[in-house]
Amino acid sequence: MDGLTDFKRLCVHTMTVKRWALAEAIEGFRAAGIPGITVWRQHLEPQGAKESGRMLRDSGIEVVSLCRGGFFPAQSAADRAKALDDNRRAIDEAAAIGAPLIVLVSGAVPGMPLAESRKQIADGIAAVVPYAEAAGVRLAIEPLHPMYAGDRCAVNTLRQANDLAEELDTPVVGVTVDVYHLWWDPDLESQIRRAGPRIFSFHVCDWRCPTRDLLNDRGVMGEGCIPIRKIRQWVDDTGYNGFIEVEIFSDEHWAEDPHVLLERIKTSYIEHV
Amino acid sequence: MDGLTDFKRLCVHTMTVKRWALAEAIEGFRAAGIPGITVWRQHLEPQGAKESGRMLRDSGIEVVSLCRGGFFPAQSAADRAKALDDNRRAIDEAAAIGAPLIVLVSGAVPGMPLAESRKQIADGIAAVVPYAEAAGVRLAIEPLHPMYAGDRCAVNTLRQANDLAEELDTPVVGVTVDVYHLWWDPDLESQIRRAGPRIFSFHVCDWRCPTRDLLNDRGVMGEGCIPIRKIRQWVDDTGYNGFIEVEIFSDEHWAEDPHVLLERIKTSYIEHV
Repeated sequence: MDGLTDFKRLCVHTMTVKRWALAEAIEGFRAAGIPGITVWRQHLEPQGAKESGRMLRDSGIEVVSLCRGGFFPAQSAADRAKALDDNRRAIDEAAAIGAPLIVLVSGAVPGMPLAESRKQIADGIAAVVPYAEAAGVRLAIEPLHPMYAGDRCAVNTLRQANDLAEELDTPVVGVTVDVYHLWWDPDLESQIRRAGPRIFSFHVCDWRCPTRDLLNDRGVMGEGCIPIRKIRQWVDDTGYNGFIEVEIFSDEHWAEDPHVLLERIKTSYIEHV
Repeated sequence: MDGLTDFKRLCVHTMTVKRWALAEAIEGFRAAGIPGITVWRQHLEPQGAKESGRMLRDSGIEVVSLCRGGFFPAQSAADRAKALDDNRRAIDEAAAIGAPLIVLVSGAVPGMPLAESRKQIADGIAAVVPYAEAAGVRLAIEPLHPMYAGDRCAVNTLRQANDLAEELDTPVVGVTVDVYHLWWDPDLESQIRRAGPRIFSFHVCDWRCPTRDLLNDRGVMGEGCIPIRKIRQWVDDTGYNGFIEVEIFSDEHWAEDPHVLLERIKTSYIEHV
């Protein structure tokens, strides 16, 4: 399998360089020659979406997606309505910053049966689809690792995300393939093939062996055991030629100088993606 | 769904009361009226399998299984042969203590492609089947949570374990259903039905929300979000009427007085299993 030879498809999440404000991330990405950025909503907050949009347009860096919408299930109808409002706000923000896509972390409620969470997720996405269509913003259902089924996301395999997207059957709803969440799945290759043009985005990082923390111990590509290049090839074989997004939550890497981290990301991107 | 009204099917793993030597565990289980014990190999070591078998037979407590065999994949043929030797030793030990069953944690090697690990697991189990048949000891393939795919077990869903067991097609090979590893799986109910008489053992504990550690933060039943009773009902609906094994790895619970822990296990067994 051939590796990548340039950085044209490289995108980095603002959460990967979490300590940087948006302006610093823009400067840092420009200095490092990183052409794509995925913006987390917390990085919009200080200056607001409108001003963030202006900064991003001026930067020439392409906005790949906004993270994140979702979190649909809730015990009360009032809280489910609040979640829909929040997703509509996210769609407004995406439009304001020129993000063509919102990544959905679907949500889960401790103690709620997973089947019920999954139903509420399907209903929640369906409810915001018209708003997304009107805004011209796409929605990507991101299956999260089964270790998050209890309290973060009840969609835990690409098969489930594909089922949901197929059921909703609209060109604005697709899936995100994140190697961290999905690499273990024996059905991954076939479900990537099935997803085909519904793959709206592709996230990479690595699974450390051992992983020391359930949330914040992701590795830079090459620091773990995920066959990243093989999975990237499966994704590209569907015709996907969009950005490859580096999303690393890591207490260890967050403690480093982000400039140094970006250089290591570039090296490992060429070597392992 | 009806709860259980007595402790006839209650079994506790020696790892749940890890600090106790086997003799202490036997005494503690007797005092608490716990009729079944699953013995971890480290609890056999100090006095050896033969003496352990004598102690267990004298106790009147039923030996439900021996934990654990497996760990088949390895980079070198020599290491794979060592793993087979170790599994044969485990079979000898099971026979010596009167355990009718060995639970297999199949193994995984960081960096080895999962497909290769899975092939080596199938080959490894097949290689020890004749020895198990001769000893009259059954082998249960235990799928482990996908968060262990990197370094502990490449069999991560009940579907995979069922596929393996079907392929091997011998009455000595079946599966273990552990709610901690499998509760998130949207296919769990159908795969339990498919497993049917191949369910050789059933493990319970709970998934804490949030879980603070990947290995040692399991909860007592009721401390987390697993629908334990529902899954137990699915298992019983297949005709399973064997022991229900409480297997809790928890730094928090290991720090408690095991006598107190056993009483809490009994209460939560009636309330939540």
